[in-house]
Amino acid sequence: MLRFSTAGESHGESLIALVSGLPAGVDVDQEFIDRELWRRQQGYGRGGRMRIERDSAHILSGVRHGKTIGSPIAMEIENRDWKNWTEVLPVSTGDPAKHKAVASPRPGHADLAGALKYDFPDARYVLERASARESTARVAAGALAKQLLAPLGIDIASHVIRVGRAELDREATWPEISALRNKEEVLLGCVDEASESRMKAEVDLALRTGDSIGGVFEVVIHGAPAGIGTYANWDERLDGILAQAVMSLQAVKAVEIGRGVTAAESLGSEVHDAIGYAEAQNGSHTRFTRERNNAGGIEGGISNGEDVVVRGYLKPISTLRRPLASVRFDTREETKAAYERSDVCVVPAAGVAAEAMVALAFARLVLEKFGGDSLRELKRNYENYIEQIRAY
Amino acid sequence: MLRFSTAGESHGESLIALVSGLPAGVDVDQEFIDRELWRRQQGYGRGGRMRIERDSAHILSGVRHGKTIGSPIAMEIENRDWKNWTEVLPVSTGDPAKHKAVASPRPGHADLAGALKYDFPDARYVLERASARESTARVAAGALAKQLLAPLGIDIASHVIRVGRAELDREATWPEISALRNKEEVLLGCVDEASESRMKAEVDLALRTGDSIGGVFEVVIHGAPAGIGTYANWDERLDGILAQAVMSLQAVKAVEIGRGVTAAESLGSEVHDAIGYAEAQNGSHTRFTRERNNAGGIEGGISNGEDVVVRGYLKPISTLRRPLASVRFDTREETKAAYERSDVCVVPAAGVAAEAMVALAFARLVLEKFGGDSLRELKRNYENYIEQIRAY
Amino acid sequence: MLRFSTAGESHGESLIALVSGLPAGVDVDQEFIDRELWRRQQGYGRGGRMRIERDSAHILSGVRHGKTIGSPIAMEIENRDWKNWTEVLPVSTGDPAKHKAVASPRPGHADLAGALKYDFPDARYVLERASARESTARVAAGALAKQLLAPLGIDIASHVIRVGRAELDREATWPEISALRNKEEVLLGCVDEASESRMKAEVDLALRTGDSIGGVFEVVIHGAPAGIGTYANWDERLDGILAQAVMSLQAVKAVEIGRGVTAAESLGSEVHDAIGYAEAQNGSHTRFTRERNNAGGIEGGISNGEDVVVRGYLKPISTLRRPLASVRFDTREETKAAYERSDVCVVPAAGVAAEAMVALAFARLVLEKFGGDSLRELKRNYENYIEQIRAY
Amino acid sequence: MLRFSTAGESHGESLIALVSGLPAGVDVDQEFIDRELWRRQQGYGRGGRMRIERDSAHILSGVRHGKTIGSPIAMEIENRDWKNWTEVLPVSTGDPAKHKAVASPRPGHADLAGALKYDFPDARYVLERASARESTARVAAGALAKQLLAPLGIDIASHVIRVGRAELDREATWPEISALRNKEEVLLGCVDEASESRMKAEVDLALRTGDSIGGVFEVVIHGAPAGIGTYANWDERLDGILAQAVMSLQAVKAVEIGRGVTAAESLGSEVHDAIGYAEAQNGSHTRFTRERNNAGGIEGGISNGEDVVVRGYLKPISTLRRPLASVRFDTREETKAAYERSDVCVVPAAGVAAEAMVALAFARLVLEKFGGDSLRELKRNYENYIEQIRAY
Repeated sequence: MLRFSTAGESHGESLIALVSGLPAGVDVDQEFIDRELWRRQQGYGRGGRMRIERDSAHILSGVRHGKTIGSPIAMEIENRDWKNWTEVLPVSTGDPAKHKAVASPRPGHADLAGALKYDFPDARYVLERASARESTARVAAGALAKQLLAPLGIDIASHVIRVGRAELDREATWPEISALRNKEEVLLGCVDEASESRMKAEVDLALRTGDSIGGVFEVVIHGAPAGIGTYANWDERLDGILAQAVMSLQAVKAVEIGRGVTAAESLGSEVHDAIGYAEAQNGSHTRFTRERNNAGGIEGGISNGEDVVVRGYLKPISTLRRPLASVRFDTREETKAAYERSDVCVVPAAGVAAEAMVALAFARLVLEKFGGDSLRELKRNYENYIEQIRAY
Repeated sequence: MLRFSTAGESHGESLIALVSGLPAGVDVDQEFIDRELWRRQQGYGRGGRMRIERDSAHILSGVRHGKTIGSPIAMEIENRDWKNWTEVLPVSTGDPAKHKAVASPRPGHADLAGALKYDFPDARYVLERASARESTARVAAGALAKQLLAPLGIDIASHVIRVGRAELDREATWPEISALRNKEEVLLGCVDEASESRMKAEVDLALRTGDSIGGVFEVVIHGAPAGIGTYANWDERLDGILAQAVMSLQAVKAVEIGRGVTAAESLGSEVHDAIGYAEAQNGSHTRFTRERNNAGGIEGGISNGEDVVVRGYLKPISTLRRPLASVRFDTREETKAAYERSDVCVVPAAGVAAEAMVALAFARLVLEKFGGDSLRELKRNYENYIEQIRAY
Repeated sequence: MLRFSTAGESHGESLIALVSGLPAGVDVDQEFIDRELWRRQQGYGRGGRMRIERDSAHILSGVRHGKTIGSPIAMEIENRDWKNWTEVLPVSTGDPAKHKAVASPRPGHADLAGALKYDFPDARYVLERASARESTARVAAGALAKQLLAPLGIDIASHVIRVGRAELDREATWPEISALRNKEEVLLGCVDEASESRMKAEVDLALRTGDSIGGVFEVVIHGAPAGIGTYANWDERLDGILAQAVMSLQAVKAVEIGRGVTAAESLGSEVHDAIGYAEAQNGSHTRFTRERNNAGGIEGGISNGEDVVVRGYLKPISTLRRPLASVRFDTREETKAAYERSDVCVVPAAGVAAEAMVALAFARLVLEKFGGDSLRELKRNYENYIEQIRAY
Repeated sequence: MLRFSTAGESHGESLIALVSGLPAGVDVDQEFIDRELWRRQQGYGRGGRMRIERDSAHILSGVRHGKTIGSPIAMEIENRDWKNWTEVLPVSTGDPAKHKAVASPRPGHADLAGALKYDFPDARYVLERASARESTARVAAGALAKQLLAPLGIDIASHVIRVGRAELDREATWPEISALRNKEEVLLGCVDEASESRMKAEVDLALRTGDSIGGVFEVVIHGAPAGIGTYANWDERLDGILAQAVMSLQAVKAVEIGRGVTAAESLGSEVHDAIGYAEAQNGSHTRFTRERNNAGGIEGGISNGEDVVVRGYLKPISTLRRPLASVRFDTREETKAAYERSDVCVVPAAGVAAEAMVALAFARLVLEKFGGDSLRELKRNYENYIEQIRAY
């Protein structure tokens, strides 16, 4: 079974990503992983730190001679800032006087809830782990999942469809979305230049006013075969699994499959995607056809052969340069929330992290359906199934 | 650990709900369970069948002398229509000639995806399990979770905030939402009479045109203590767990925590809920205060002491009296989608089912945090923690 | 993923077995299931009740027209004695005066530990679920797993190799073990008549003295392919998974893979099974050969292509006609342990239950390795792999 | 929920142990962890390498100022030999000519089964992960579990009761077993000097003849409270969970709870432990008493308040200096099995690894029963329960 987990704090020595359950024989390209990490660091509205640091995944196990060997893969991503924090956050007892307390909980963050839960006198330990820095490790893990899916013809990419009030006002095609990954300068991850300009204006407004801004990203699984996930049990449905995967990302507050939000305002005849039949298109797994994809490629909790489309709604970053009202942990006096250097807009980066989560979730279900301990075995099972449904 | 699962088909003999992991000594009220089942069957826009049938959970195990005994609880809910289906869907080989094929896949349903996945020549077996009838068993299971949470002062209810284009245009208070459960005639589960009238008009439109209509429900966990869920691991976050629980319901296509959808269009200063401090209010678990609850009671994946608010976006029912275009499974000729008698609007009922899922998910996390093999032990642990965070 | 669970008490209305994750299209033979239930009720040394009652699994869901449909399978097994217990153990509050307390904990049973854990004043509720009656539901579930494995050429059977001091003193062959299942009179489930006589004498001794007697059963997976389970993670090893599966049976106190107990007393050269190479034998999955199978078909946590052999060590039944010393729950005065009618020897029956657990565990791992949502897909994947390792 | 996993190969850069689910505020003593790692490296009959290398766990996350912070703990244990293997086992493609194939599968190891499963041309990648080197990471993880249990008064230690034909011929007391941990020279981990001499003679015999030797270790959970584990579900029983935990260790081929093996040969009256009642002894959790502990502290899958006793049966090391017969992977010609430098006897070390697995398994169940996000909360819940059962 594909499993993954992460460890590490924002200002600790390093992050660890651990992935197990990949079959043997999958090509692992170090540059691809690092490129994914780079993509997660980009976007207009990021703090200065992002532009200087450059994450890199150091593979400790599970990959030999450039291929997986069926054993757990551990990757370490160094926190380059650690050298400045060894006395503030030592593993050993250290000098308590050097601790940097987060003295007042920041609204929107885990600070208050975490301090209460874990019985901490301030929020330092909370934010160290609750920080979106953790998603770096998810992106590294997701890069492995993508490399598993690639030889099956399954590809995953994201784009931004809203920043604040600025919305992408037309359909995006897969080639457009896919091509965004090759850009060397990421602005706001939008396929449409005019829309992206309007998005940039939203970020500029937040920058000017010491505020922050959210938005909506869309992740697409291109080449998803019909038959992944099932209605048989509530916890095996593809939609539910994707919802958890994406909602679990820092700052995501809503998840939508296809056109789920507008569907709730519409008539059934406007929503559901009529079914036709035709000669198989290039890359299509069946000969059943649809003229639209409001369902986002999922019906009854199962992928239906169309592209799977998941959207995440990102609230604005909770750390504001012009901080919100809060109270001190020690005295309970009113104060402004603590401020740690932060970004103003992270929608494209959140999209990259969501790609990773979607890739990991989908790869898990693909392995559940097709099995296989070597890529050769997985591919054989996969291709025979594709042939089966094409001949259905 | 609290686990639950369901079995059973729409036209089979019965549905089974299996719940294990409840501590011993929890009062189980048969009438309460049946009332929940009744609530799931109500609402304006349901098919005629709902008005005649009356579901009831028959407890087979795990409850003795009116209390849980720490052992798995199995409940059986009879399908009263089974007597008409014994020859169509026999367990044993039976007479294949009596099979009622679902000859063309219905857009929006699992029909096509399921037939491809399981290699079925038609969609009969698919719809039997993919049907929302299954949520009956979830509601029975959820009724047990609610009876576990009640002695801890945690209560869960839902209301409808949108049907089609008709939206609840004001805030709803907890007493209003809570009171809806006592109504003997459920119209559309809205706390506001005028809004409900507009909602009814939407259903009437769909009825008249042979169409169907969706909407949005909101589930509230009232009395949720701070500290449930955690940011420590992606799959332990309360928001992600609730997202899967609610998205896994039939026809739900988006899930939102608090004001997640509008948050994505807003500035940080408009979204995050400032933190204050005051004397403990009646029922409040801490003395930290908020003046609004845009976060929906969850920050950083942890409940923060405010009411937890989750919304589900329901697409219109996929079965239309005026059916959509499809193709025949056998000949691939164009046809209209198969029609099985169905509802036109199920938003309030979906809200009831979502309450059950939210109750089960939250109860699981409550048991994880507080442990306890008897209700006495659970309550002691719970109350001592509440005292701890109140004194924080 | 193959999952199963059970519910139900010894004197409740019925037992429930729930199995989910089987692919569609597997033949389910009601008679086979009931025959397995019958086998579990046989053996020399059983109480009178066993000879009268006859268990039967009533399938409620997941099987239609004699085949699985990919949806959860629920089976109900009636407790024929329930009619005499409705007032003693009612689901509703009932009349507390009619309760039959188990007033003193029986050594060897869960009585004391369970009453302390769940905070019960006596052990009635404990024994209702801790009773080996529960294994009936496991046997029904296991019968489904066997019917999944059969079309892959994987067969599972058990035999008894020890009762008390009487031991099978020679090797048993697969045809001998396999043939035991066809006997219409089960004595002690031993392949050797002389050994079985000595085993019977052990039971007779226990019967005469009001005592009870244990023994050792051996379960064999015949036709197990190489490659099931893995060393990659501690919880994915076949040996560990089988150990939990078998140890979880009531009264099993030790589990052994192959010749594990004697291996601990031996030199490496006496234990390990040398590897040769030859033309494929009938039914063999590879051309690698062994002249002996001390490893019990598992090396490094993976099946190696030989028959998988697991043994369970059964303590004597904890309920003795001549009861052991105990104390009263209420007064703490010394007394004799409570007595409920019981068996004297259940080794062959425990072997049948262990077959079920081994079948379920192995089937889960087979499905993990080969995937497949229809039997057709599973078989294709399976056969292609067998071809691959045969050609290795 | 307490979860742990490991990564890393025998000759890779490092091993990783990842533990998540520990409450905040648990003291973590680096020296204690390293002492545990040292203990795992000791014992008469180990290879020369063990005497030179000295393992140390480097904590990367989850511990700050000497205490857990509720976040996942990652530990890295360097493989000091890695510098000699960077070209043999590179992560990147490297030079295939420098690969060191394991050209013939070694009987008793995963070599053959693993090569078939993962479709490898030789067994190098197999042994890298299947090697008992992996248990180092388990010991580091287990050291954390022990530090969680210590403040609850629960202590875990092991001793050796058999090496080959030499058996400990008397009962061992807890103070004797406990004291073994303080010895600076570990011979064979036996509490009795004379027995240990006989054990040493068994190792000497194996050394002289180029053979290897196994044995039996016993792990004791001292101070285990009544009520851990449950009969309610098959996979929640303490005995089954411990069986998997211990069987999952490399070379363990049988697991026994208490006197499980001899129980199978005995009468019930000889096996079951009569129950008495008396004033609470020092450290006892209840006032119920036993005069013997054949059950090994577990009845009906639940700890009963006595010390929990688990035994592991270790086969002789599979790598023999005088290798067994095998065949070449490439030509299938007969040959001797490949030889990698190895130990001759590892029974005491396996006992240390088993302590870790038992600690992790027991800690998981303790956290399930008592919950708690801070040590303060866990202790409060724990102590209140102990008071409850003491007053039962």
